[in-house]
Amino acid sequence: MSNMQTLGVVRRTIERADPAAVAALSRFGVATLHEAMGRLGLMQPYMRPVYPGAKLCGTAITVLLQPGDNWMLHVAAEQVRAGDVVVAACTSACEDGFFGDLLATSLRAQGAHGLVIDGGVRDVQELAQMDFPVFSRAIHAKGTIKATLGSVNIAVVCAGVLVNPGDVVVADSDGVVVIPASSASQVAAKAAEREAKEQQKRAQLAAGVLGLDMYQMREPLSKAGLRYID
Amino acid sequence: MSNMQTLGVVRRTIERADPAAVAALSRFGVATLHEAMGRLGLMQPYMRPVYPGAKLCGTAITVLLQPGDNWMLHVAAEQVRAGDVVVAACTSACEDGFFGDLLATSLRAQGAHGLVIDGGVRDVQELAQMDFPVFSRAIHAKGTIKATLGSVNIAVVCAGVLVNPGDVVVADSDGVVVIPASSASQVAAKAAEREAKEQQKRAQLAAGVLGLDMYQMREPLSKAGLRYID
Amino acid sequence: MSNMQTLGVVRRTIERADPAAVAALSRFGVATLHEAMGRLGLMQPYMRPVYPGAKLCGTAITVLLQPGDNWMLHVAAEQVRAGDVVVAACTSACEDGFFGDLLATSLRAQGAHGLVIDGGVRDVQELAQMDFPVFSRAIHAKGTIKATLGSVNIAVVCAGVLVNPGDVVVADSDGVVVIPASSASQVAAKAAEREAKEQQKRAQLAAGVLGLDMYQMREPLSKAGLRYID
Amino acid sequence: MSNMQTLGVVRRTIERADPAAVAALSRFGVATLHEAMGRLGLMQPYMRPVYPGAKLCGTAITVLLQPGDNWMLHVAAEQVRAGDVVVAACTSACEDGFFGDLLATSLRAQGAHGLVIDGGVRDVQELAQMDFPVFSRAIHAKGTIKATLGSVNIAVVCAGVLVNPGDVVVADSDGVVVIPASSASQVAAKAAEREAKEQQKRAQLAAGVLGLDMYQMREPLSKAGLRYID
Amino acid sequence: MSNMQTLGVVRRTIERADPAAVAALSRFGVATLHEAMGRLGLMQPYMRPVYPGAKLCGTAITVLLQPGDNWMLHVAAEQVRAGDVVVAACTSACEDGFFGDLLATSLRAQGAHGLVIDGGVRDVQELAQMDFPVFSRAIHAKGTIKATLGSVNIAVVCAGVLVNPGDVVVADSDGVVVIPASSASQVAAKAAEREAKEQQKRAQLAAGVLGLDMYQMREPLSKAGLRYID
Amino acid sequence: MSNMQTLGVVRRTIERADPAAVAALSRFGVATLHEAMGRLGLMQPYMRPVYPGAKLCGTAITVLLQPGDNWMLHVAAEQVRAGDVVVAACTSACEDGFFGDLLATSLRAQGAHGLVIDGGVRDVQELAQMDFPVFSRAIHAKGTIKATLGSVNIAVVCAGVLVNPGDVVVADSDGVVVIPASSASQVAAKAAEREAKEQQKRAQLAAGVLGLDMYQMREPLSKAGLRYID
Repeated sequence: MSNMQTLGVVRRTIERADPAAVAALSRFGVATLHEAMGRLGLMQPYMRPVYPGAKLCGTAITVLLQPGDNWMLHVAAEQVRAGDVVVAACTSACEDGFFGDLLATSLRAQGAHGLVIDGGVRDVQELAQMDFPVFSRAIHAKGTIKATLGSVNIAVVCAGVLVNPGDVVVADSDGVVVIPASSASQVAAKAAEREAKEQQKRAQLAAGVLGLDMYQMREPLSKAGLRYID
Repeated sequence: MSNMQTLGVVRRTIERADPAAVAALSRFGVATLHEAMGRLGLMQPYMRPVYPGAKLCGTAITVLLQPGDNWMLHVAAEQVRAGDVVVAACTSACEDGFFGDLLATSLRAQGAHGLVIDGGVRDVQELAQMDFPVFSRAIHAKGTIKATLGSVNIAVVCAGVLVNPGDVVVADSDGVVVIPASSASQVAAKAAEREAKEQQKRAQLAAGVLGLDMYQMREPLSKAGLRYID
Repeated sequence: MSNMQTLGVVRRTIERADPAAVAALSRFGVATLHEAMGRLGLMQPYMRPVYPGAKLCGTAITVLLQPGDNWMLHVAAEQVRAGDVVVAACTSACEDGFFGDLLATSLRAQGAHGLVIDGGVRDVQELAQMDFPVFSRAIHAKGTIKATLGSVNIAVVCAGVLVNPGDVVVADSDGVVVIPASSASQVAAKAAEREAKEQQKRAQLAAGVLGLDMYQMREPLSKAGLRYID
Repeated sequence: MSNMQTLGVVRRTIERADPAAVAALSRFGVATLHEAMGRLGLMQPYMRPVYPGAKLCGTAITVLLQPGDNWMLHVAAEQVRAGDVVVAACTSACEDGFFGDLLATSLRAQGAHGLVIDGGVRDVQELAQMDFPVFSRAIHAKGTIKATLGSVNIAVVCAGVLVNPGDVVVADSDGVVVIPASSASQVAAKAAEREAKEQQKRAQLAAGVLGLDMYQMREPLSKAGLRYID
Repeated sequence: MSNMQTLGVVRRTIERADPAAVAALSRFGVATLHEAMGRLGLMQPYMRPVYPGAKLCGTAITVLLQPGDNWMLHVAAEQVRAGDVVVAACTSACEDGFFGDLLATSLRAQGAHGLVIDGGVRDVQELAQMDFPVFSRAIHAKGTIKATLGSVNIAVVCAGVLVNPGDVVVADSDGVVVIPASSASQVAAKAAEREAKEQQKRAQLAAGVLGLDMYQMREPLSKAGLRYID
Repeated sequence: MSNMQTLGVVRRTIERADPAAVAALSRFGVATLHEAMGRLGLMQPYMRPVYPGAKLCGTAITVLLQPGDNWMLHVAAEQVRAGDVVVAACTSACEDGFFGDLLATSLRAQGAHGLVIDGGVRDVQELAQMDFPVFSRAIHAKGTIKATLGSVNIAVVCAGVLVNPGDVVVADSDGVVVIPASSASQVAAKAAEREAKEQQKRAQLAAGVLGLDMYQMREPLSKAGLRYID
């Protein structure tokens, strides 16, 4: 199979990550999951929640948009199943408002858990009132057209990360992370391990133990040549 | 009349948009008004409210500032009538703090409904407490001088949009839109039509009807060559 | 003494600003302090609080980080005394997440009043819940390594401002300002004077007096050539 | 007449600046013309020549494009007369490649002196070989569609400056300046005056006279409080 | 196979695009190839040649770097075969100088045709003198370390485009395009067709035929509602 | 002495780096000098030459400008001695054209070797013809005023680097580096050592030796866990 992206295609049958793994992943924050993946999978930091406290977790319905054109978001809505998150990339950088409260109403009616879009959105006050979580590169009222085909459920690059349909997408106030469907349970397990360790560390640090001691950094620092002066 | 901007001029007599039309426009959001104008009139998306929930509607008192110099904002204050919004452009890009709580106190005392400035502002906590709505390109404490003339109530380009004194300016969490005074009632009427239609659409989408069907997109998508695969 | 920055050094003995002066400075906002310094000392406006309402005041523990490496933040934690603020610069621009809730827990346990970092941070929801004030150039979940030495308590340039260990750092919703330790009381005194004057001005402006009259601007404006037209 | 921009309109009859004034303006650089206009009329500095040495002067055929759509450039080509410069704005920020060597060939055949576009262009090596001067915000190979109407020969805001059809546009390695048609001769005259004075100044400065003395700055500097220390 | 990126891996055996197809592709410019791919495959426009006239074509050796760390470029050098182009992505945005004339000397000795790097490079004058083509997001002298593993010859996202080892990379003054290995001959064929057509079009346009007529746009423009006014 | 910057001061007596050391430093490129300083001293990469091939080396006359105001550049001209480089910082970010060919003529007449300015400049074609090297953050024709005091020959932060009067500034196509006066000979010596070693390395790499072997990286890579697969 070629890795060449194709325009004008909607894939109806996708393999979603195991629901149990998705549920497990939903209990962790983005920073923890990114660490559990070996420090990979993060979208670029310009992707921000459009209202405070927005967070989401779900399986990706991917969309490739054309600049200033949101036609494919309507096509994508039909492919949404309960628990999906729509992940929209664009063939070139565009901050127009591809998405607003009408599309949010539609996606929610189809069961979507939110939207991640490398573009602009509008109606952000209504999105906040609906508590429909959206992570985007911009807020912009600019309307879009419906003229050119993109694709739905092909591999896309969104904000610097490859996303395949069915991958798990988790987003919170720290950003957006993508976990390949086939690694979902493994990453959830590692995240749990990491979080357990962090609890212990947090308690020690709160009690005044220094990271220098807790992580045994004094010797490597000294070897690296660190000098203390007065 | 030349379209050449002139420095050192204050126009005292301006033609403000019809108050009834302004009142009508104030009931709509920025995205709706922008659509009602045929998708025009939007400032660039870097213009953001300086506190959550800020919104404003009023007739423009326009100001052309010099970089790092807020002298003309004091000159503009005298021209403000109840219901005006001060719209400040700058002769070159500058994020200094041209505006703070003292000027906000003054503008409010003169009846202003808020400020839109293609520059920086400060005292944003005080502005939030006063609920004096400000939309700006930056928040910056940097003080400014009073040394060089600009103008008041000439045509200015603010964040990419031409603003004439008396035009209607509406801003909310989706951005800032400018409606020419002469088009105010017409745009308000179109906005009302649009909003009525949107209510119906929202209900259908909430009930699970797809945009593909509601907007009858299936045939044009097929003609454009969209293929469904499994 | 050379002004050449040195890597691999931790200065344990620093001269902190007078605690009474720090207490005095803590009562003022960033804009006022910046004015009291003669309009100097401000970091660039990309430095923003990571949660609404964050503010801090304290004496600087300075850190020079390497890109993608937070080792020196652990070294800095040991140097923190009650009332200090950690100020972290980086040898080249980097938005990775150098800091999160574990380090915040540790810094707080050592008595730190907050962090100012010309880089990224993560766990911002936890930081908000802890009310541990952080001002940064970015929010980014990207993890960092511990491999290369920087320094602690040397002079650093953070977001465009020179910071020496022991200087006073004040940050609020208007930005971040740095007051040299040796100028702390003097700046506090000037800030008090300025604030007293501003109270009077605010009252006059609220009563409808124009800045044009209160500041006696009409004559200089006229001399500069300002013309009023109708 | 409303200042509301209209989509879907081509104005065939425009009033171009006086050819003699255009010829006069063509002898000056952008910085000189901007000064002669009272320091106004400059586009934002992100507008750059796409090859070294590009420069142009002509009367504006204005175009309002839609993002990712270059249809109206073809419509504009028909309106070009010998000596015109096409000035293209876009309804929202877009760096797609709206223009390449084919359109350059066409515009040249119609007599155009170049292009100023607040968007992207491609085929820049061919443009350099043709010596067809183009000033743009980006170089980008991304292709565009032909689907949505904009307008030709309406007032547009391009890179922060209002441009009316028939205005004079001058661009060189210092940027792009727009001179209203009605001010063209007046600006040319002032530019000539300024240049004459600059020749004298240049000679004095080259001979070692200081600007402090030539411009008689010592007294105002001293009054402003400048202190010399050793 | 998972689409999860893995760190610490070097793939020695990769499938390069057919040499004949690579040779065919090398005759076309980036804009033409991007069109021949259906307007896909372009890196973001911030990727620029580090000296004028730089151009390259070859098969990708992919590298995933860590910020501020160029260790993997040395690892990649061993995998280079004559005609390869090194394509380097980074786990987070970093403009440090990962690459200079020593590495260029080494890559050339191994047969590389150039470098595409989503990061900074240095020694650009030497690179120009060597005529070793490099396309990067920044020029920066900042040195890098060799401390953390990335990978070589895994799928990477570079400047917004997915690149698999063995894909064809073509870069010139219009940007950088990536053609999947499996599509190389097909894209070359389409590019040839396109170029042939463009020659005819160029001749007509040069003779003064308008695009409006040559592309038969008058009817669709009229249907879309375009109005001509005087 | 306080590290508080003072406005309105011109220091006439500064201690310049040893001329022999400056001469020694002038033989090296920016990347080499930055390495010789322990990877410090580099300005941010947005500082670029305004014409190809520009390079400079000299002792710093420092200037602190106000936004949109170039008064202090005239004051600085008087302090220039043969071999100096003017280094101009600004109290807040500003891309106005603070400097053009007249000031270049004056600085050259006083013996200056060039200008480094964290702001904009104009007349770049004339600067190229004069071969007067300038490194700036922007090219912009926007004129500036002469109204507010800054300072000359105080410590300034320019593009992220602390510069003291008398420090050595070296700039070429890789950027700008600042070497403290007191470290000048030491850095020149280290640069010479480094360059000698690089010559040997270059020869080996050109002969096909891999960096992996020349730098003995295979063992540390293996210890770090690097795996080769087919």
